[in-house]
Amino acid sequence: MSDACDHIETLRVRYSDTDAQGIVHHSNYFRWLEEARIGWLEAIGQPYGDLTRRGIYLPLTTCSCTFQSPVYAGERVGVQLMLGTVSRARVDLTYRIMSGAQLAAIAATTHAYVDSAGRPMRLTRDDPFWLSIKKES
Amino acid sequence: MSDACDHIETLRVRYSDTDAQGIVHHSNYFRWLEEARIGWLEAIGQPYGDLTRRGIYLPLTTCSCTFQSPVYAGERVGVQLMLGTVSRARVDLTYRIMSGAQLAAIAATTHAYVDSAGRPMRLTRDDPFWLSIKKES
Amino acid sequence: MSDACDHIETLRVRYSDTDAQGIVHHSNYFRWLEEARIGWLEAIGQPYGDLTRRGIYLPLTTCSCTFQSPVYAGERVGVQLMLGTVSRARVDLTYRIMSGAQLAAIAATTHAYVDSAGRPMRLTRDDPFWLSIKKES
Amino acid sequence: MSDACDHIETLRVRYSDTDAQGIVHHSNYFRWLEEARIGWLEAIGQPYGDLTRRGIYLPLTTCSCTFQSPVYAGERVGVQLMLGTVSRARVDLTYRIMSGAQLAAIAATTHAYVDSAGRPMRLTRDDPFWLSIKKES
Repeated sequence: MSDACDHIETLRVRYSDTDAQGIVHHSNYFRWLEEARIGWLEAIGQPYGDLTRRGIYLPLTTCSCTFQSPVYAGERVGVQLMLGTVSRARVDLTYRIMSGAQLAAIAATTHAYVDSAGRPMRLTRDDPFWLSIKKES
Repeated sequence: MSDACDHIETLRVRYSDTDAQGIVHHSNYFRWLEEARIGWLEAIGQPYGDLTRRGIYLPLTTCSCTFQSPVYAGERVGVQLMLGTVSRARVDLTYRIMSGAQLAAIAATTHAYVDSAGRPMRLTRDDPFWLSIKKES
Repeated sequence: MSDACDHIETLRVRYSDTDAQGIVHHSNYFRWLEEARIGWLEAIGQPYGDLTRRGIYLPLTTCSCTFQSPVYAGERVGVQLMLGTVSRARVDLTYRIMSGAQLAAIAATTHAYVDSAGRPMRLTRDDPFWLSIKKES
Repeated sequence: MSDACDHIETLRVRYSDTDAQGIVHHSNYFRWLEEARIGWLEAIGQPYGDLTRRGIYLPLTTCSCTFQSPVYAGERVGVQLMLGTVSRARVDLTYRIMSGAQLAAIAATTHAYVDSAGRPMRLTRDDPFWLSIKKES
């Protein structure tokens, strides 16, 4: 199914998300992607707080966004998250940001797994987060 | 001298500081006050990083701001910081935010001293930060 | 009833609302108050977009917040909005920010009515926004 | 010269740029890129305010950032801007974000020229902005 996605996070656009142009500032799209990730992690039973308590952090190594149509304060946007390539060292995610039926933006983020000191790490084969995303992908 | 102040921090207004109204979003004034505090702490030889390494944090207990005239992207604002009442438990600061010769806002913050667990604490009589602000006030 | 309020806005705390201290940055509380105002205006049938289309803007003239207990990423906060003094030139609002049953902060904002050029204005006696808040207060 | 760049913008990292991880939130890198663009436009004699007054806007159509090493509050970062492909319909920019001698991130943005209604437009052959970036590229 072409529109399949692994999680949808619905967000209300804050007035403070906009800039002097009257539309949402591009930097804030990345904040919505983050909310979608956090919602997705909760939905798969792996809340980010649990991961960090176990010493697993998911910083971005790269991110990108292509903007299709502007978004305005007060709208509700749906951020669709799709799990991409997963490994025990990193995970790729892609996103569609929808304003109603309108595609507002597409985006991608790559996350490395690092420990609390910021050092790259590999998930163990029985790590619950790994088992969870391996199954889903 | 009516215009005396303890520190002036000059900041460039970021485009992302503005909102759909075309002017700086009111919440961002508080971010400028924070920059002024950080600049002031450096100027008096008590950088915030040094304080936190010694286990002293300065969270806000209250803050207020009165807005006089709007500020636009690209402007440079001067945040004047004035040290108010100081004690070994808290410190009061007031501010004038100037856009050129124009008064844009006046503001005030009160900060309690807390430890890394967020518990209220009193500065010791020989604490270098205390000696520094006691002299200045 | 002491706990009566005119509107409750429930918000999810964004990870990007926090700062290096691990708790929500104080400036972001003011962004939540704004969301509560926007939700309240919708709830009373006077969406902010309608007001601005009629040439009525509600900039802050002053705001303040007193912080009681920290708020963390991922929490849901309830912002309770209470309508205070209203006139045809300005409106006072107060707020309680709740994190569960815990009072996180109390706050207040005052708004002047201005036109699209930022000039102070008075609401007419039959202005629907005025009739609406007059009744409610 | 491999390190040649068209503009360097030096910025102080705001404490409010950081998140609960203690490092700068990734979304804020895009705000720094924007400051670098605004500084560059000023440096080449084409301030963004002049462009918009002439009805030329430069919204992002796409942006990306690859993160190399974290950045902390209080640091000063140097954002190096390099002009890429330019045409009368769009402009590509790339960036290096330096924290001292350390490469913190590389980034890219593409901007379309649009009018005040958001419609794509082409710069005229004698447009001062076009003459300015054509010469520089």
